[in-house]
Amino acid sequence: MPHKIILDCDPGHDDAVALLLAHGSPEIDLLAVTTVVGNQTLEKVTRNALAIARVANITGVPFAAGCDRPLVRTIENAPDIHGDSGMDGPELPDPTLELDSRHAVDLIIDTVMAHEPNTVTIVPTAGLTNIAMAVRKEPRIAERVKEVVLMGGGYHVGNWSAVAEFNIKIDPEAAHIVFNEKWPLTMVGLDLTHQALATDEVAERIAAVGTKPAKFVGELLEFFGEAYKDAQGFDFPPVHDPCAVAYVIDPSVMTTRRVPLDVELTGTLTLGMTVADFRAPAPADCNTSVAVDLDHRKFWDLVVDALQRIGEVEL
Amino acid sequence: MPHKIILDCDPGHDDAVALLLAHGSPEIDLLAVTTVVGNQTLEKVTRNALAIARVANITGVPFAAGCDRPLVRTIENAPDIHGDSGMDGPELPDPTLELDSRHAVDLIIDTVMAHEPNTVTIVPTAGLTNIAMAVRKEPRIAERVKEVVLMGGGYHVGNWSAVAEFNIKIDPEAAHIVFNEKWPLTMVGLDLTHQALATDEVAERIAAVGTKPAKFVGELLEFFGEAYKDAQGFDFPPVHDPCAVAYVIDPSVMTTRRVPLDVELTGTLTLGMTVADFRAPAPADCNTSVAVDLDHRKFWDLVVDALQRIGEVEL
Amino acid sequence: MPHKIILDCDPGHDDAVALLLAHGSPEIDLLAVTTVVGNQTLEKVTRNALAIARVANITGVPFAAGCDRPLVRTIENAPDIHGDSGMDGPELPDPTLELDSRHAVDLIIDTVMAHEPNTVTIVPTAGLTNIAMAVRKEPRIAERVKEVVLMGGGYHVGNWSAVAEFNIKIDPEAAHIVFNEKWPLTMVGLDLTHQALATDEVAERIAAVGTKPAKFVGELLEFFGEAYKDAQGFDFPPVHDPCAVAYVIDPSVMTTRRVPLDVELTGTLTLGMTVADFRAPAPADCNTSVAVDLDHRKFWDLVVDALQRIGEVEL
Amino acid sequence: MPHKIILDCDPGHDDAVALLLAHGSPEIDLLAVTTVVGNQTLEKVTRNALAIARVANITGVPFAAGCDRPLVRTIENAPDIHGDSGMDGPELPDPTLELDSRHAVDLIIDTVMAHEPNTVTIVPTAGLTNIAMAVRKEPRIAERVKEVVLMGGGYHVGNWSAVAEFNIKIDPEAAHIVFNEKWPLTMVGLDLTHQALATDEVAERIAAVGTKPAKFVGELLEFFGEAYKDAQGFDFPPVHDPCAVAYVIDPSVMTTRRVPLDVELTGTLTLGMTVADFRAPAPADCNTSVAVDLDHRKFWDLVVDALQRIGEVEL
Repeated sequence: MPHKIILDCDPGHDDAVALLLAHGSPEIDLLAVTTVVGNQTLEKVTRNALAIARVANITGVPFAAGCDRPLVRTIENAPDIHGDSGMDGPELPDPTLELDSRHAVDLIIDTVMAHEPNTVTIVPTAGLTNIAMAVRKEPRIAERVKEVVLMGGGYHVGNWSAVAEFNIKIDPEAAHIVFNEKWPLTMVGLDLTHQALATDEVAERIAAVGTKPAKFVGELLEFFGEAYKDAQGFDFPPVHDPCAVAYVIDPSVMTTRRVPLDVELTGTLTLGMTVADFRAPAPADCNTSVAVDLDHRKFWDLVVDALQRIGEVEL
Repeated sequence: MPHKIILDCDPGHDDAVALLLAHGSPEIDLLAVTTVVGNQTLEKVTRNALAIARVANITGVPFAAGCDRPLVRTIENAPDIHGDSGMDGPELPDPTLELDSRHAVDLIIDTVMAHEPNTVTIVPTAGLTNIAMAVRKEPRIAERVKEVVLMGGGYHVGNWSAVAEFNIKIDPEAAHIVFNEKWPLTMVGLDLTHQALATDEVAERIAAVGTKPAKFVGELLEFFGEAYKDAQGFDFPPVHDPCAVAYVIDPSVMTTRRVPLDVELTGTLTLGMTVADFRAPAPADCNTSVAVDLDHRKFWDLVVDALQRIGEVEL
Repeated sequence: MPHKIILDCDPGHDDAVALLLAHGSPEIDLLAVTTVVGNQTLEKVTRNALAIARVANITGVPFAAGCDRPLVRTIENAPDIHGDSGMDGPELPDPTLELDSRHAVDLIIDTVMAHEPNTVTIVPTAGLTNIAMAVRKEPRIAERVKEVVLMGGGYHVGNWSAVAEFNIKIDPEAAHIVFNEKWPLTMVGLDLTHQALATDEVAERIAAVGTKPAKFVGELLEFFGEAYKDAQGFDFPPVHDPCAVAYVIDPSVMTTRRVPLDVELTGTLTLGMTVADFRAPAPADCNTSVAVDLDHRKFWDLVVDALQRIGEVEL
Repeated sequence: MPHKIILDCDPGHDDAVALLLAHGSPEIDLLAVTTVVGNQTLEKVTRNALAIARVANITGVPFAAGCDRPLVRTIENAPDIHGDSGMDGPELPDPTLELDSRHAVDLIIDTVMAHEPNTVTIVPTAGLTNIAMAVRKEPRIAERVKEVVLMGGGYHVGNWSAVAEFNIKIDPEAAHIVFNEKWPLTMVGLDLTHQALATDEVAERIAAVGTKPAKFVGELLEFFGEAYKDAQGFDFPPVHDPCAVAYVIDPSVMTTRRVPLDVELTGTLTLGMTVADFRAPAPADCNTSVAVDLDHRKFWDLVVDALQRIGEVEL
């Protein structure tokens, strides 16, 4: 039986790949897509999400817009990495899908409450504002959700400060809320995603798929690669967000380690750091894990296979 | 035309007086009552709110329950001040009113959006979790609300730490959100409410009303007075929450001063302090004010008059 | 018997008045003068201290230079208030006194240890770097000192932020050290010193003394008044530092209140705030007090009398 | 020409090995030994230092006691690791060496200022209180010292919290001072020292030396191993402090990486973390490095050789 997921995202180049991976994988039942401010403004990332839906012909899945700013902090976007549109590179088609009338927070709550307990996995690949709001508005989802598998953080790697990652640092209070709830939580952080490089070989495999969606991904990764080279000195771009989806599809795509996790809220140098305590074996009630090592080949196989399954789409 | 208000509260002895004052004052059009964890658990304060509705025969006003815990912090209640029920003292009747099916956050949003811009005043007399959630979920209310008049904080007085007040300190992140929005905000803090003492003379005036609701208030204040004597050494209890309602009814009941306000989130000794900057005249765009001096006589006149207007109620 | 004091200062206009008040008062036995970075660089304030010594013909008192930067923070000076020299206004004579060869920290330690226990009062009118260093280097002085009477902080007033005062905020870690030692400590803060205004009448009284040192003070206060008017909107300048000396001379010059005090080290809005807990009577072991109300007339009498006693000095 | 060093320590089992390594290595010219509160009280660690001097027959080197508490924080010792004496295990002989009359802070300053610029390396293997005090009292040592090579911190490993190490966390303000001075600084942290395990083979090599000092080290490591097993689950104890001395003797004993370093002072979860920013190549003016990989064989060769050179000592 496929894994039911809610994808909460801020497309974003790698969010786009995550959404395509989810859509093209039979192991995934995509229940809802929600958007939140992050890589760009809420308006832009929501438009991008709908554009991706058109590119990949995603239908029958509710898309809803969520919070337009973090809980406490002022807005930080990442135009250096994602461009002015939040998804620069390919030409973005005009969306045809209409947004669900509900707020993302309510769509998340409704979706979790409408399904059997322990059947819905939340996959956030953005700041955690929507998820934090949802669990504070409807605390019962904390027990009803099967798992939260999120892209964000890093136990030894940072990108938005020496030790903090963008998705966590832009709304550390929301992250603190999400990391401290009782649901099982797997953090697919930079330690893992910096292994998910879109190398030249990867680009060639995607190009070889030969479809319009694959071409779209190719153009995304080309821009993303240039941006990561210029902004952070990477040879190839780390394609963060689909790693979280890949873990839901097939946990064997990466190793994980159970470890207590928390989010730093008051540090001068460490604000938004995801603090993992590796000093001792995790206690019996520890409900948090971190992703450690990626099977690079298997990961990109999942992405390429999904693109092949999506097939050709006429725009 | 009466002032339309939403009362967000955590009854709470003084919340009860605030609700009765609003209900019994023709200057107030009570649009909605919402509850939030604070003086006691959400379950208890919600039950208390409904009990007050029965005591004062409040009908036709939606009551809704809201958040059951603060945004980031763990729950802190105040049983030393409000007892195990959150409203110890009088016998509490079984509620007859049914809760609105909506979450308090949605009732707040719906109510503000359903009325003309600049007509609805939000009067929080509790932690600011519901209000913060509402403005993050529906940012347009920040411009649509006429004013926020809240009981909480203090510029020179604390009660939950040397320099922080209970309503702010139990959810400082929510307070930070509310204090930093663009709506006009008047903080009726401890500097003011510690002047609103229920002296013996006040108790006599309330007793003289002679109705069941007045007797109910008398019993509330008796317990409240004992609690404040034991816990904080007060000769008479400061009846905080109706001060905010009184200001909406008649601003001349207190003096206020416009001053920049913010909420401390990282202090070791000062967490949750409402920091007012009195060093210079407030800048032109300053949208926050603090209450300074109370007209004690006028304030209690408002309360006694409201009780008289409520009249007798059969339980 | 006169009160033995060590004056630790950063002249500074009001430090100069403090030093003259100490020198000209028979109730004071000035054991040592030490300087520390603050109103200006260590080099400038040390030169200023020696210039004051020449103006007032202070001899036989060791002067020593101390720390040239705060413990942890980077240097903050106050040229807006004290000018480029740290004591702008009068012409400063070339010093004739030579500095003691010891570091201020050692001079403080040696002086305290050389006198009987409970006979030496430390009077800091600057950042507390030297005093903190001294008590960490020689912990025994904490029990041997009679009292610390410092100008700094404020329980309800700030000048270097909404709630913090300059001397404390420029080295909050040092202040934390000093405020948490076991010695009796009286904080003569802005709450008090903002009452010590050098009004026109005060200026006239000083001018009437008619000596060169009095003229020097007059010129200091004239510059100081202009600076305070321009920078902080005061009608007359608050002459902070001599208040601490005046309290040693005659405690009846002000009222004080015993109250627990501590210094905030991590607040975003409140860094360096001196937090006083007025919620309950001070516990029996409370060793800290704050100055509350100044007898303005008596205070300036002390200053004018001291100037008269100093008499004429040939430069 | 041997490297002139000042060893600032808090013996401490591994401090003892560090001192013996320094004493027994011809590449080291031990100028001074200073002690500071840490593993145990100042009194105990100072006594231990003098006991080690007797065990190894160290003469002609001044030993001085320093600060008995951290700058700002209250005292934390580590009896779980070092026992009640601070150096439990072997019988400790009564010291015969007398302490230098100077305070450690002054001995450090005098020693640095008495030698040519860029010739003295400070090797702290304890909390950094003494070093911080010294550089604040005499700022010129920051330019005169050749290098600071310290045992403490960790860029990815903590032992006194999830992400902080004991020596840094017990006096984070002192560490912040030392890490932010202009001297070249190499942090030999837990990332490195957790590789310096005293395995059974190491114990056998030390035993094989057959002298009383070697037996003393053997007994230290036996107790240390048991303590580390019980308290932190290690199979073999990490012998931290001699790693810093070993690096001075022969930098090829470990790899290092130049990277900006700072110390977190306000974090709730991260207080005292040594934050390294690995995101980009170190800027040209970066004066801090971290130790990365240890040559285990070479390191223990240095220790064993030193013990052999020390030879037999009659107690």
